Amino acid sequence: MTRAPDEFPPEPAPGQPAIDRPVDAHAAGGAVSGYTVDAFHNGKFFLVQPADTGHRAGMDAMLLAATVPDGASGVLADLGAGAGAAGLAAINRLPGLSAVLIERAPVMADCARRSLALAGNAHLAPRARVIEADVTLQGRQRLAAGLADQAFDYVILNPPFNAGADRKTPDPLKAEAHAMESQDLFERWLRTAAAILKPGGQVSIIARPESMSGILAALGNRFGGVEITPVVPRPGDDAIRILVTAIKGSRARMSLRDRILIHQGAGHVFSNEMNDLGNGRAAWPRRTKNRLPK
Amino acid sequence: MTRAPDEFPPEPAPGQPAIDRPVDAHAAGGAVSGYTVDAFHNGKFFLVQPADTGHRAGMDAMLLAATVPDGASGVLADLGAGAGAAGLAAINRLPGLSAVLIERAPVMADCARRSLALAGNAHLAPRARVIEADVTLQGRQRLAAGLADQAFDYVILNPPFNAGADRKTPDPLKAEAHAMESQDLFERWLRTAAAILKPGGQVSIIARPESMSGILAALGNRFGGVEITPVVPRPGDDAIRILVTAIKGSRARMSLRDRILIHQGAGHVFSNEMNDLGNGRAAWPRRTKNRLPK
Repeated sequence: MTRAPDEFPPEPAPGQPAIDRPVDAHAAGGAVSGYTVDAFHNGKFFLVQPADTGHRAGMDAMLLAATVPDGASGVLADLGAGAGAAGLAAINRLPGLSAVLIERAPVMADCARRSLALAGNAHLAPRARVIEADVTLQGRQRLAAGLADQAFDYVILNPPFNAGADRKTPDPLKAEAHAMESQDLFERWLRTAAAILKPGGQVSIIARPESMSGILAALGNRFGGVEITPVVPRPGDDAIRILVTAIKGSRARMSLRDRILIHQGAGHVFSNEMNDLGNGRAAWPRRTKNRLPK
Repeated sequence: MTRAPDEFPPEPAPGQPAIDRPVDAHAAGGAVSGYTVDAFHNGKFFLVQPADTGHRAGMDAMLLAATVPDGASGVLADLGAGAGAAGLAAINRLPGLSAVLIERAPVMADCARRSLALAGNAHLAPRARVIEADVTLQGRQRLAAGLADQAFDYVILNPPFNAGADRKTPDPLKAEAHAMESQDLFERWLRTAAAILKPGGQVSIIARPESMSGILAALGNRFGGVEITPVVPRPGDDAIRILVTAIKGSRARMSLRDRILIHQGAGHVFSNEMNDLGNGRAAWPRRTKNRLPK
């Protein structure tokens, strides 16, 4: 498989097979041809993904999940869940939390369902379900899809990145996942997030820095207390991601937090912080006290 | 004098008097009662400021000036120049550059003129002049004030910070300088910046992180290639400033650069980087190659 150079896989757990090897499938209890079963959180949960196509889940999803604070309870919506990496990472760390994985692409929603059916995910399946729907649905269509108003305590989202002119996307499924980030993508996704969150609920986003303007505009008056964390490969590098959280209905000021550093030293070794965040051993909670709704 | 806790004075130069001591005035050649004459860039230039009132120039202005790259030539506009700290810092480092200091408040414009009259600034005075005008003037009024269309190679701006609910501003002049940052402050200031810059010219802004949304919205389609640098006191702290540059007419993507760290260790000692930037020994040029207009 190929990865874009700025995407980073979870580290192989000590004593666990490396990710992306079909051999994992057997251990996880669900080998199927054409799919891989990849281990996350040091082998604590597994993800079925198409073997050769589509966006691969990795550290982006793990960082996104880390923004849900320790002690969180209630229901989380993972918008554009793909195979469910971020939502499952959140509930794997947080035993009081349930997740609804919302995904439009049938192939990926199918992967999410297959993931929940794995023996290795038996501890998570009772707290997760999949909705195959477009997260930008509005009004009655959204309600009919199962996305009720003010039904969620947390919303996390990892929208498709801009394929852009500088990025080759020869593969159609990958091209869809990296679909063109239209001017109003975040407007449409955050409109849904605002609708389905309880007042005081937290939205979390991982995105490229170039999306900051669109994200801030779409958060607009719906959310406040925006906290942005740059994710930086090595000291002196530009950020390759921003991790954004905000609170529905808050009027608090925006803050810009110090970076998360991905690597330690000049090589590809992860920093301790990144290892802990990526493997569910640590959270990246908001600085301002979270209102944990209800 | 008092400073807000997140403002930082320039370091006293070795062998130079500390800033804010009237004793400096004699050395600089212009002691006047009611004013201080403060040394910047290790005593390479001086600034007349009201002794007890008003916003005091400091590291913000020095960082702003540092965004103008080595080798820059042409004319720079310092919008809302105050006593002229940022503009004079830029031309003190850059012998090929001239500066126009634009300031609305008569007391501060007077300080800027007094600064240019100091013997200690004789090397700068031929390359600087003061325009007493409101930077938000439009149309004929702006032209009549001397702010012609596409006349400048660089524009730097350090708009008044939001006084905000959490900040005491008992002093009226200080209150004006820290005046309420209205929703459209950056819209009005950057409208002028876009009008007076040559195509390909660079605008630089220093502001609080909470202004990011307003800045990005106002940069809008007028500017591109936005580069944002967080300015962070110590590792793990939230940024207290953002340093923003952008290019008029560019369509390049935004980037988020790694932080500038103000302090070294837990105390109040400046980092080497901050010392160099604050004293004109180093620049903070854009990462993407600057088009140096004309």
